[in-house]
Amino acid sequence: LEPYCEFCAIVKGIKHAEIIYEDEIIISFLDIDPVNYGHTLIVPKNHYSNLGDLPDFVATHIMSRSKYVADQLQKALNPDGITIMQNNGCFNDIGHYHMHIVPRYVDDNFKWIYPKLDRSSNRLREFGNLIRKAISV
Amino acid sequence: LEPYCEFCAIVKGIKHAEIIYEDEIIISFLDIDPVNYGHTLIVPKNHYSNLGDLPDFVATHIMSRSKYVADQLQKALNPDGITIMQNNGCFNDIGHYHMHIVPRYVDDNFKWIYPKLDRSSNRLREFGNLIRKAISV
Repeated sequence: LEPYCEFCAIVKGIKHAEIIYEDEIIISFLDIDPVNYGHTLIVPKNHYSNLGDLPDFVATHIMSRSKYVADQLQKALNPDGITIMQNNGCFNDIGHYHMHIVPRYVDDNFKWIYPKLDRSSNRLREFGNLIRKAISV
Repeated sequence: LEPYCEFCAIVKGIKHAEIIYEDEIIISFLDIDPVNYGHTLIVPKNHYSNLGDLPDFVATHIMSRSKYVADQLQKALNPDGITIMQNNGCFNDIGHYHMHIVPRYVDDNFKWIYPKLDRSSNRLREFGNLIRKAISV
């Protein structure tokens, strides 16, 4: 555990959180800056930063528990949908891996705004080739 | 496989996609409406709709392969970060489960807009209690 990490402090019990579930590997609590009410995080108890840092058994357990927590949020809040998401690299604002489980509503005004891009099939093929080449190396 | 599902058509090979990886359980190809170039989907070959419909071995395999594909995109495109996300219920526009793996850049202008909410600790506690109660039933 990292001394100045606020999620490690929640794991250690020295920082308050609205904990809704925990087991040996993960802890799950409400996001203090929710997209919608019931917005929950699933956090490995050990300090890992990004998806690529997770041992496979932790990554897969997070997915199994995401499914479980999503089911519980569906039961508790009956949203129109649930979005799960997780940011890595410079978009991981906390530095400790966390999966977001977000209850969604048709009229919730949560929106994503897309960059402008050339979305032609030629451009897509170009990137397909680039990625396939990287994979085959 | 569903006759009118476009992702099932890609699995069957009767619809084109920029496929970058596949195995017995999943197929991975570029999103035709990318947030950024290299935006990739991971799709189970069987037709499941939502996270709650996935057998555990499929859900966990999708997470393991998300990690793999994210690593490959990092290698191919060197983005500043990677966001993974997946929409369920009325926000699942295709009807066939798909995990998004999105390369991100500091200046990419991909933004999410949050709803206005009362984000006080009292309101958070109220929803914590509601969800804990649902879980304990």
